[in-house]
Amino acid sequence: MGRTSDKLRTREQMEKTKQTCEELNLSGLVLIGSHLTLSDSLDLNEYFLQEGVTTKVCAVPTVVDGNITHPLLEANLGFDTASKVYSQLIGNIMTDAASCKKYWYFMRLMGRETSHLVLECALQTKPNCTIISEDFESRDNTLNDVVDYICDIVCARAEKKKNFGTVLIPEGLLTHLPYLKRLIGEIDQVFKGKTAEEQHRLSIELFNDQAKVKEVLTPWSAAILESLPDFTRRQLLLERETGGGVQLSQIETEKLLASLVGKELKKRKAEGRYKGSFSPVTHFFGYQGRCSLPSQFDCQLGSTYGYTAGVLITAGYTGYCVSARNLVAPAKDWVPAAIPLISMIGKSTESSKLHIPSSQVDLKSKAFKEFSKLYKQWIHADTYANPGPIQFEGEPVVNITTKLKQREYVSLLDDVTHLCNDIGKMCQFGVQDEVLRIAISNLAALRDTIALVKDKLEEN
Amino acid sequence: MGRTSDKLRTREQMEKTKQTCEELNLSGLVLIGSHLTLSDSLDLNEYFLQEGVTTKVCAVPTVVDGNITHPLLEANLGFDTASKVYSQLIGNIMTDAASCKKYWYFMRLMGRETSHLVLECALQTKPNCTIISEDFESRDNTLNDVVDYICDIVCARAEKKKNFGTVLIPEGLLTHLPYLKRLIGEIDQVFKGKTAEEQHRLSIELFNDQAKVKEVLTPWSAAILESLPDFTRRQLLLERETGGGVQLSQIETEKLLASLVGKELKKRKAEGRYKGSFSPVTHFFGYQGRCSLPSQFDCQLGSTYGYTAGVLITAGYTGYCVSARNLVAPAKDWVPAAIPLISMIGKSTESSKLHIPSSQVDLKSKAFKEFSKLYKQWIHADTYANPGPIQFEGEPVVNITTKLKQREYVSLLDDVTHLCNDIGKMCQFGVQDEVLRIAISNLAALRDTIALVKDKLEEN
Repeated sequence: MGRTSDKLRTREQMEKTKQTCEELNLSGLVLIGSHLTLSDSLDLNEYFLQEGVTTKVCAVPTVVDGNITHPLLEANLGFDTASKVYSQLIGNIMTDAASCKKYWYFMRLMGRETSHLVLECALQTKPNCTIISEDFESRDNTLNDVVDYICDIVCARAEKKKNFGTVLIPEGLLTHLPYLKRLIGEIDQVFKGKTAEEQHRLSIELFNDQAKVKEVLTPWSAAILESLPDFTRRQLLLERETGGGVQLSQIETEKLLASLVGKELKKRKAEGRYKGSFSPVTHFFGYQGRCSLPSQFDCQLGSTYGYTAGVLITAGYTGYCVSARNLVAPAKDWVPAAIPLISMIGKSTESSKLHIPSSQVDLKSKAFKEFSKLYKQWIHADTYANPGPIQFEGEPVVNITTKLKQREYVSLLDDVTHLCNDIGKMCQFGVQDEVLRIAISNLAALRDTIALVKDKLEEN
Repeated sequence: MGRTSDKLRTREQMEKTKQTCEELNLSGLVLIGSHLTLSDSLDLNEYFLQEGVTTKVCAVPTVVDGNITHPLLEANLGFDTASKVYSQLIGNIMTDAASCKKYWYFMRLMGRETSHLVLECALQTKPNCTIISEDFESRDNTLNDVVDYICDIVCARAEKKKNFGTVLIPEGLLTHLPYLKRLIGEIDQVFKGKTAEEQHRLSIELFNDQAKVKEVLTPWSAAILESLPDFTRRQLLLERETGGGVQLSQIETEKLLASLVGKELKKRKAEGRYKGSFSPVTHFFGYQGRCSLPSQFDCQLGSTYGYTAGVLITAGYTGYCVSARNLVAPAKDWVPAAIPLISMIGKSTESSKLHIPSSQVDLKSKAFKEFSKLYKQWIHADTYANPGPIQFEGEPVVNITTKLKQREYVSLLDDVTHLCNDIGKMCQFGVQDEVLRIAISNLAALRDTIALVKDKLEEN
């Protein structure tokens, strides 16, 4: 039936959905998609409950970006496949880099505003330089900081006579850099509510006339815009989505960075701080990574999620997101699970209403910690890995993020066991009865709290 | 040891090669690469023979572009792998096209000046529109003709409410269109022999000043240049190879075509000849298709070619290009072969000396004929094929070009058998003796000619 970007947001759409479900006498409706689809499922479920519709609502977390997170969710359907296709392509480029030793490859990966895919692909392929948007954002870094970061690596490699290398860039980088985020926001605001014709006229005016830019943007944003190369200004101003917003996937951040790095290196060369040569080649890995035949892992996950959705509906549960645990084990040992959609709600910047948010890369996650441990070695080591194309025979191999996430959960379990053991040991025969009393009152309070939280979670 | 673009052209390089071969007392030297490498091998072999060097020279035809052709050569090493990686990516994009049904995808494939890869990938994936440079060149078509050709297909699909589709474009298209070929030649000439600094200044001058362009280019080429969008003019003038030539892989022909098609469609819409909507998405599939882990077919071909090279050298043969026949059969039934390099010589446009040329797509080949039979169905049928990633288990599958080439050879053999049979039947008992005399004299002459040609070929 195909992919759609339609959303279930208006009262009218809800009513129409209700009508169709009742006409067809559906026992369940399964919505498959990203955090936006999960939010829609939540709304629809509330609406169905209010209206007394008997159709059960179930959501399947499916997004290549991997940005739906929850402590009980180990994997988004599609992430494994996309990460493997992108890693195959990155690996091929790395083979080229290591073989011809004359280019710096700047590779941008599709993936909206989060860097989960870039992080996973970096762990799979070990590039010389990886930009994780959330990392730079956490330090309030500017575009110049990113350029300097890359230049430092280029210079360090040049000193070892390596005038080649590989850089991974997430699609959404610019929206994570404070000044650029603001610039993009301001531009979006300028175009908002205008007709296509007005937008078209305005964008050409802004592209050609710096005075006009200063009129509609804050001085700071106008200055930033002026500092960008022509092709980026063009992409920010002229190539807009039908809704008027900046078309994120059309901003060639890889070319912008390659161009700015080239400029900065010229400066450093003039100052005697850099003696190498710099030939950049840019690549954008877009839709070709997102519509692959699925990996073995995703095939099994898809059928597990689908089956679980069916079981939930048959058993009369509504308002759940399917999940599965123990995904590092062979599929036969996976544990199907379900998460109340209501427990996935988070802070929203997009609207005032409750919704299930897109999750950024957590800088405290095992995946990012693993990356932090390794990325410095990759600057010089050239231990490029080319994982090759997805194979449909042999043992399935789960992606590294999911593997580490699983380890994260297991280590939480371990922590509880260890703490209980420690307390048990500290409270053995001979200890003061004051200590025992403190332990007992606190443990009892904790036990009651846990029971309450568990009940509440199950209620939802 | 890595890939190099070094060439063996000067007397000095030859002498150095000789010296090294003699120092190491090498029995053979195997050169692996494209038609340029084959030409170098030929030169080196001549030089070694003249100089009495005992090292034997052998070449392995290895080029992803698939542009080394000879009646006795069924496959270039690397072509199978590249065609499969590109087809995987094209297939993924097609899955996206068929699923979201809202974009026109313009995909450009790397592959220098020939369209062998595009032809093979089209046969594997069945896109709605395929541009084979040699086909358009054979009709002396202009860029406008190519744009019209694509527009006609977009319009035809729009009439069936299909405002989406897929277009395959070879990297070297522009060099095949007479006016653009001339423009590129003129630009190259303008920059030739200038220092990097002079080139840089000149290119900026030309980019900004139309009067200067008219000064150095013919009026016709200047007009063509002026008619191109800014980003293409920039790529033609500003982003040049270190040697000064136009950097073919950096000209974003896919964006140029998408932009020109968009313009033409607007015109047609204004005239009431087109009612659809047109959202292009462009992709360039470059190095990521050229450095893959090899397909099973290429693994087997690589070891067969390598082994054959060893055998030739051990047996004392020099000046040969390795080959293997019967490649559609399982590898155990392949027939190792060798082709005298001298027999591969062809016309050169690049230099006055004899060399082994890059072969264009032969419009009379089985592969092109197969494409000609099918491409019209693909305009509407949406029988997109996604062959998926290369698999390392299971039976190897040979690419379609090689399969058809083999069929070509077999059908030549068959033709000879059939003709002999026909003549035999026509010359049975009872036929006029005049007929017999004609047959005998002609057949005898043919037999002698064949013997002579075979001797000559073996001599070389």
